[in-house]
Amino acid sequence: MSDCIFCKIVNGKLPCYKVYEDDNVLAFLDIKPVHPGHILIIPKKHSETILDTEEKILKDLIIATKKISKAVYYGLKLEGFGIGINQFEAGNQIVPHLHIHVMPRYKNDNFKLWPSKEYGSEDKKKEIQKKITRLLK
Amino acid sequence: MSDCIFCKIVNGKLPCYKVYEDDNVLAFLDIKPVHPGHILIIPKKHSETILDTEEKILKDLIIATKKISKAVYYGLKLEGFGIGINQFEAGNQIVPHLHIHVMPRYKNDNFKLWPSKEYGSEDKKKEIQKKITRLLK
Repeated sequence: MSDCIFCKIVNGKLPCYKVYEDDNVLAFLDIKPVHPGHILIIPKKHSETILDTEEKILKDLIIATKKISKAVYYGLKLEGFGIGINQFEAGNQIVPHLHIHVMPRYKNDNFKLWPSKEYGSEDKKKEIQKKITRLLK
Repeated sequence: MSDCIFCKIVNGKLPCYKVYEDDNVLAFLDIKPVHPGHILIIPKKHSETILDTEEKILKDLIIATKKISKAVYYGLKLEGFGIGINQFEAGNQIVPHLHIHVMPRYKNDNFKLWPSKEYGSEDKKKEIQKKITRLLK
């Protein structure tokens, strides 16, 4: 897409610090990292979220994510890492071109995880389960 | 692994609210959700992180993640969602059996994202890029 910042990076119209490329995937440094070495992994072909991305491309993305995670983990001597995908504006997706974050982590880096709370009842769990599984049959 | 809580769920020794299953993948409700409908997607065969998981299984996991995300998104009328994988203890991985979180999101749910900061210089970016790419050649 002509106005997509990540498509411009794929097309070479904007620069990046590239760390990996194959037929379907490009990966580069996030310029505002959680920690240095925070990587963005994107499909070269524009899609907005995982929902509209072809299966073949998703498979290439996850294999690239393994390779890149390994290189970041050992190359930067990490203690841990996170993989994250934000989907849609309500999910804090800033650029509407699918991107997988690989984020270096260290003990005591005070990186807060998501808040969570328990379901109040078994019935609530069953209700939610039903709403999801009826679309997976 | 006999003492792994997720292996016990796979083997039926512990219960779960299952939403999806195929040859290599099992998915069920996280009992302490960010929002109701928070799902954990796991490989049936024990592996600790993405780094020690077979490529075939990773491909099955990402395809299942697409299917499940779609069912959660439409089934629960979400406004967005997040996909997350925490790796190693320093990365806040609680259960050492690979699991992919699919987390419902809503506008103004005050779910804080990771903190970030800019690299101070171009040289710092090049140094980090080099440490990663030398392991990707």
